[in-house]
Amino acid sequence: MSDESTGTDTLSALRNLLGPAGYLAGADLPARNRTDWSFLPPANPVAVLRPTTTDEVVAILQHCHAHDIVVTPQGGLTGLCGGARPLDGGIALSLERMAGIEDLDPDGMTMTVRAGTPLETIQKAAAEAGLFFPLDLGARGSCAIGGNLSTNAGGNRVIRYGMTRDLVLGVEAVLPDGTLLPMLNRMIKNNAGYDLKQLFLGTEGTLGVITRVVLRLYPQPGCTSAALCIVPDYDTVLSVLSASRKRLGPLLSAFEVMWADYWHQATERTGLRAPVAMGQGSHAILIEMQGLDEDIDGPRFEALLEHLMNEGLVQDGAVAQSLSDIAAFWATRDAAAEFANPAIIGPHISFDVGLAVARMDEFANRAKAALMERLGCHSVYYGHVGDGNLHVVAWVPGADPQPLSAASEVVYGIVGEMKGTVSAEHGIGALKKPYLPLSRSPAELDLMRQIKTSLDPKGLMNPTKIFD
Amino acid sequence: MSDESTGTDTLSALRNLLGPAGYLAGADLPARNRTDWSFLPPANPVAVLRPTTTDEVVAILQHCHAHDIVVTPQGGLTGLCGGARPLDGGIALSLERMAGIEDLDPDGMTMTVRAGTPLETIQKAAAEAGLFFPLDLGARGSCAIGGNLSTNAGGNRVIRYGMTRDLVLGVEAVLPDGTLLPMLNRMIKNNAGYDLKQLFLGTEGTLGVITRVVLRLYPQPGCTSAALCIVPDYDTVLSVLSASRKRLGPLLSAFEVMWADYWHQATERTGLRAPVAMGQGSHAILIEMQGLDEDIDGPRFEALLEHLMNEGLVQDGAVAQSLSDIAAFWATRDAAAEFANPAIIGPHISFDVGLAVARMDEFANRAKAALMERLGCHSVYYGHVGDGNLHVVAWVPGADPQPLSAASEVVYGIVGEMKGTVSAEHGIGALKKPYLPLSRSPAELDLMRQIKTSLDPKGLMNPTKIFD
Repeated sequence: MSDESTGTDTLSALRNLLGPAGYLAGADLPARNRTDWSFLPPANPVAVLRPTTTDEVVAILQHCHAHDIVVTPQGGLTGLCGGARPLDGGIALSLERMAGIEDLDPDGMTMTVRAGTPLETIQKAAAEAGLFFPLDLGARGSCAIGGNLSTNAGGNRVIRYGMTRDLVLGVEAVLPDGTLLPMLNRMIKNNAGYDLKQLFLGTEGTLGVITRVVLRLYPQPGCTSAALCIVPDYDTVLSVLSASRKRLGPLLSAFEVMWADYWHQATERTGLRAPVAMGQGSHAILIEMQGLDEDIDGPRFEALLEHLMNEGLVQDGAVAQSLSDIAAFWATRDAAAEFANPAIIGPHISFDVGLAVARMDEFANRAKAALMERLGCHSVYYGHVGDGNLHVVAWVPGADPQPLSAASEVVYGIVGEMKGTVSAEHGIGALKKPYLPLSRSPAELDLMRQIKTSLDPKGLMNPTKIFD
Repeated sequence: MSDESTGTDTLSALRNLLGPAGYLAGADLPARNRTDWSFLPPANPVAVLRPTTTDEVVAILQHCHAHDIVVTPQGGLTGLCGGARPLDGGIALSLERMAGIEDLDPDGMTMTVRAGTPLETIQKAAAEAGLFFPLDLGARGSCAIGGNLSTNAGGNRVIRYGMTRDLVLGVEAVLPDGTLLPMLNRMIKNNAGYDLKQLFLGTEGTLGVITRVVLRLYPQPGCTSAALCIVPDYDTVLSVLSASRKRLGPLLSAFEVMWADYWHQATERTGLRAPVAMGQGSHAILIEMQGLDEDIDGPRFEALLEHLMNEGLVQDGAVAQSLSDIAAFWATRDAAAEFANPAIIGPHISFDVGLAVARMDEFANRAKAALMERLGCHSVYYGHVGDGNLHVVAWVPGADPQPLSAASEVVYGIVGEMKGTVSAEHGIGALKKPYLPLSRSPAELDLMRQIKTSLDPKGLMNPTKIFD
């Protein structure tokens, strides 16, 4: 960006366009817009723009395009990889004032919302209409749906409902030159030409700005069942997964696995009461079913558990008898959020990787040994095994800072060798950019750059993210 | 394409590359490769190429790119819109000899297949492994999976499993210049950079050639239930849809609606025994559930029907008591295939459009009146209402040829006004190209052309299809 582009005249044109509440700069520039949840250091954008309409977004991008100004779109700023962190000297384009539900169609089971709408607002609006929007993640109260689309967010129920990409029917988006794409399709089936919305899903704001979204809704679950099972080895994890899929079919809503090393941290060290004892087991499995009718589906779930015990697959197990039991089971899975407590683990490094389901234990064993051997680094393993998604928590006791780069080299190196992905659900952003070539071939990276160059020849939309 | 490009030297290079079985020209050029099921007249390609390996596809595309030769990829040639019809003077690139299953992973629930594999082969291989590949359509024995991907095929179970796009985890594809993209991802969650496979799904071979595919498998259904219900009006259709979704949730596998005008043709005129009487009803609904366990899910389905009767929603109904009952119910829905019989309707025009679910009856009424008023054209209506997909059969008694263009103007004009899609599941190809602007904005069409130009600057991959 040239100095001229951020000169007073250019900035005042944007301020005149958006008014004082829509243009924050200097002392008014909010600290929160300088970075996201990636813990990258705060950046120094020249201004935060806060449009209230799609027309304003179009005008902003036309203006920035004409004056070669770099733009980083921002939603709820809860991303973990730095995708929404603005560039020094660039503009942060926050969609926070473009929030709200525009339409809910109960027959078509769709909801049309503005991109800045918080996820939780959408979940609640669906529930009030007797319907269900299945995307769910820890940041639900803060994250915005536009950011969920831009990062193709995953979350807790992917095994049943898919990723964010699978929950989107249409988008309204603005290209880097300000061209408006009114693609608010509401139909499940639409084969009229290229499915252009895909260009804006999971591309982390590098190809344009999403302004409105048509989401797919589902029937509300009628009942929920859950169990925690202890198994003797990973082969048994796979057998339990197979039986759960067969007997619960599309009602299976979560299949979370905790390795014994994780379980130790999550229960004994946090002081959380363990609903079952790991004993000589190797893994704990949290199985959840979203059923339709307690009278019909409750017995189905109990029959699955009985089958697992009778077959000798499960050494010890507990079936939730209440909603508070279900919450207690999930607490073991969610305990990772407390690991930063110095009394438990303290400073650590987190990973989000994807692997073939059958090879996740092999990966865990290799990564654990390599981290310890090369870096004296401890590590524990857990994840959405039904989706092929594994999380790793790694730490060198007492190290400050923790060896982020060195541990990343070890973990992502093994991921690459095993043809896994360096990002299952968090995206690439700025943090994981050095490791993207481990998961994608040179030809793929070239094609990504080619698409980027075609849609954004000036390189103004969230540059330096995903790839250079 | 210049005359020089198809000169003897160029052709012999391809013949040498592929051998006599891989290069068919002149008298050996098969008639079937000259068009597809669109009923467009046979074209005159210079040769049909039949590679057996991805390396050969790479070599062919490199060669054609260097010599400016136009290429049309071909699968099972069952497309209805002319997408696989080659160009006069161009090359037909048939994947028929690249068939076969390379891998089936029961833990990851994936299957890796070559692009020329017939759909039915894949369905059977999944079933033999105790699993299920849900894509299903009438041409299952002839169509190839590469073509299913290229057209994003729909079919009978979209309401439960989604379109082909939703069933694909990875593809291996070759760009127009011969660049190989090895994107055989097997993971449900993978957010490492742009999801480039989307460029080859539903783009009808205009951006490259799919050579291998990773498909997602599902658990085999344990039982199937079906019912036929007669309702008094379209509002009741919507109420029955809502109740079916709520009570069957993700087990609902089909929700097909037949308007009374269609029902009359499909039963009285074909001589098919009607499982229920339409009487004063307005619509017949075929509801199907794929359950997991007959003992558990059978009663669930019966309870739904009891609810519909008790609420007074359904005037008359029949529940299948056997597999042959289920087949008889589907026979009413599939009777459209017999309409070409002169004793029933004879020559006619078929449409595949998409609309908001709540407005399908409004569309049917408008289209029926306009077709009759403007063209003296009869029409009947049926479709996958749960997916927002309507089929129309239209005919002017005794007209030969039938007024395809005039009827298309009427039907697609109303679709455009109602913000529907001119293609729900068949694609655009050559036949629907004139009507694409009714469903997509100028900005979208420009962006499609921009993507096309970026990936295929010479315009050699299946040109003239979808858009000019």
